[in-house]
Amino acid sequence: MAAPIRFGIVGFGNIGSGVVDIFTRNGPLINARLPRPLQLVRMADLDLTTKRPVPVPKGVEFIDDANRVLQGDDIDIVIELVGGLKPARQFVETALRAKKHVVTANKALLAHCGAELWNLAAENGVSLLCEAAVGGGIPCIRALQQGLAANEFTSVRGILNGTCNYILTAMAQTGAAYGDALADAKRLGYAEPDPTFDVEGFDTAHKIAILASLAFGQDIRFDDVHVEGISGVRADDLADAKENGLALKLVATAQRDDATSPVEVHVHPTLLPRGSGLGSVDGVINAVEFVGNAVGTVMLTGPGAGPAPTASAVLSDVMNLAQQIADGGLSLDSRLRVPVGVKSLCTFEDVETVHRVRARLTGDAAAPSQVRDAFAAEKVGVRELSESGHRVLTLITERAPEKRVQAVLKRLEALPCIAEAPASLRLEEKP
Amino acid sequence: MAAPIRFGIVGFGNIGSGVVDIFTRNGPLINARLPRPLQLVRMADLDLTTKRPVPVPKGVEFIDDANRVLQGDDIDIVIELVGGLKPARQFVETALRAKKHVVTANKALLAHCGAELWNLAAENGVSLLCEAAVGGGIPCIRALQQGLAANEFTSVRGILNGTCNYILTAMAQTGAAYGDALADAKRLGYAEPDPTFDVEGFDTAHKIAILASLAFGQDIRFDDVHVEGISGVRADDLADAKENGLALKLVATAQRDDATSPVEVHVHPTLLPRGSGLGSVDGVINAVEFVGNAVGTVMLTGPGAGPAPTASAVLSDVMNLAQQIADGGLSLDSRLRVPVGVKSLCTFEDVETVHRVRARLTGDAAAPSQVRDAFAAEKVGVRELSESGHRVLTLITERAPEKRVQAVLKRLEALPCIAEAPASLRLEEKP
Repeated sequence: MAAPIRFGIVGFGNIGSGVVDIFTRNGPLINARLPRPLQLVRMADLDLTTKRPVPVPKGVEFIDDANRVLQGDDIDIVIELVGGLKPARQFVETALRAKKHVVTANKALLAHCGAELWNLAAENGVSLLCEAAVGGGIPCIRALQQGLAANEFTSVRGILNGTCNYILTAMAQTGAAYGDALADAKRLGYAEPDPTFDVEGFDTAHKIAILASLAFGQDIRFDDVHVEGISGVRADDLADAKENGLALKLVATAQRDDATSPVEVHVHPTLLPRGSGLGSVDGVINAVEFVGNAVGTVMLTGPGAGPAPTASAVLSDVMNLAQQIADGGLSLDSRLRVPVGVKSLCTFEDVETVHRVRARLTGDAAAPSQVRDAFAAEKVGVRELSESGHRVLTLITERAPEKRVQAVLKRLEALPCIAEAPASLRLEEKP
Repeated sequence: MAAPIRFGIVGFGNIGSGVVDIFTRNGPLINARLPRPLQLVRMADLDLTTKRPVPVPKGVEFIDDANRVLQGDDIDIVIELVGGLKPARQFVETALRAKKHVVTANKALLAHCGAELWNLAAENGVSLLCEAAVGGGIPCIRALQQGLAANEFTSVRGILNGTCNYILTAMAQTGAAYGDALADAKRLGYAEPDPTFDVEGFDTAHKIAILASLAFGQDIRFDDVHVEGISGVRADDLADAKENGLALKLVATAQRDDATSPVEVHVHPTLLPRGSGLGSVDGVINAVEFVGNAVGTVMLTGPGAGPAPTASAVLSDVMNLAQQIADGGLSLDSRLRVPVGVKSLCTFEDVETVHRVRARLTGDAAAPSQVRDAFAAEKVGVRELSESGHRVLTLITERAPEKRVQAVLKRLEALPCIAEAPASLRLEEKP
């Protein structure tokens, strides 16, 4: 039998347990699909005592010294599942410098210093793969870099956080208020006790930064992403959406007009046609949509989190590396190239958006014309305008720079004929 | 600059023109993503005179002798775009024996003799890639073999023919009869003048045979697939589906209970919950859904045909090979392994199905009990039963072997209380 390709894991938490579990269950199948078998040699975690959902497999060392995985002479591939920036960054750097291939599920790490790490990998002739960092089990990184590699991308969008999508779906389906839907999500284990990272859009922003970097070959980081979360979404936003054939989703977008245009990267609640691609993704499911100049629009949906789906992604990366190692290749995928510091971005205030605005009016007969004047003053066109019997004015803007729309909204708030601060949500009508 | 990796194309028709067009437009980008540039050296077609949508690029030889592509000393990768079995099979065999990597979009070829060809490739130390053969631009083969490679698959399903999905969607949305929707599809270029290959499900059957082979590692061919097309679908089937929150799609299925069970492979019109994954795929769009024991359910949607999406898939295969060649690797992907002649299949009559049956009754008061007796005689349970004011009896069976349901339908047809032959469609309720 061919000599095994040996891997180690740093971080034996929930995801680590998932990887061990799937590798134990599917090991024979996985090895049958590879020219040389995979062998889990060693796992490291500072906590050696807490009982995990799965036991340490027989013959596998379990130690508290990460370096013996990161630099072990008998290790070909390191799986980093520590998460966060410290000490994960140092761990990954140590492994890459020791010329180990690294597989990581760490979105924060890549969204903060991915370009440096990918370059460090290239300098050392090894690979740093990260399928599990975006979209959980959805093979979106592979799709971007391999199956769709011949495309010039114009857009990558996604519903990348199951907690947010669960909450928004529940609000749409049951009419629940945000707080109640969040409490429900916590009870079901779909939201953390402190849900800030998810509901404020930070998790989603990390993921779109990674996708944007790879799709556009630019060094786009978390700090480059304009982020708005879902905690301000109100039950009547969803009621209004539903009545009008729309869905409200936390959409991450990275797009540019063409290869010479700056890239816009943002995360915010977005109205989409119900039944459109992203608009029909409900519940904890994640989705990633690519638009390429050859393929058109391709969308992938699936479980965006959880130990088993994440393990599916981690182990598929390990298998890719094993195949390359067995083939004797360099394992250096140039399709993943993000030059440090190189980017061309469009600030969010210059991004052109369409807003759907709802404002409750006082009885003042001059109200409609005052509202119209506010838009005219900022040169924002209004495409549709209607008033309900309850004096709620609903309008849809023409596409206009975000800063001008915000200026209109400020004007509206100040108008005496507006009974309460207007609600405004961005609308994407393309299919 | 690194020496180029050279490829040739056999077959300069619609798809060939698409490949040339995309390679011309995206060439600089494609080469920037590869360690060594790609060079199109030579194209062969028997017809050298017909004007194509794109010209032969400067510096590219255009000849009528296929062998100078298939065996050319200056060719590393051959793209086969001839289609059909003859002479495509011989072309691919010649190229593989000459130790050229081959990329093909030829579903018929792979569904008839894929196992032999993949094995011939392995014997010669080269690869035979086929992303474009299934799902057009959707990177589903790559997902199956790479991004989801760590999974034991239990099911692969798909909506794999845009013509059928366009027709069924149009019938659902407009209430049109099959013939009118087909005429419309022809007018719009979504159906061929002779649409048999598409509407009778043969195209879909070819594609599911390929997916099934790769997902289950078995030699599953076109002849192993139970096929029913859409030409018998009636407007009132779609009206009934719509009224009941269902969508009717031509669904290809390959599934098994576990790794020891036989595989069922079939193509037939299927009722699905509207808003479920496959149930919400409308128009000419294709979809492929994988269920793996680690990842759960992952679905990919996108354009299933057309020169540019197909070129996206073909060129991404070429890029994968170029990367491997540049790395110095064997380029031999063991994750693609289909042993000739090895299969374990379940015949369609033993497949367990759920049927939704509608039957128009005469006024006979004994009708409902006679119908019930027909089901009881074949030991097929009935889960739901309702009768409309128009004497239309609608019922849903329990899951039962297909042959027993067919026996029930025969009995029903013979009953004097049944006014016309009952309509029956298979129903899949899993999400």
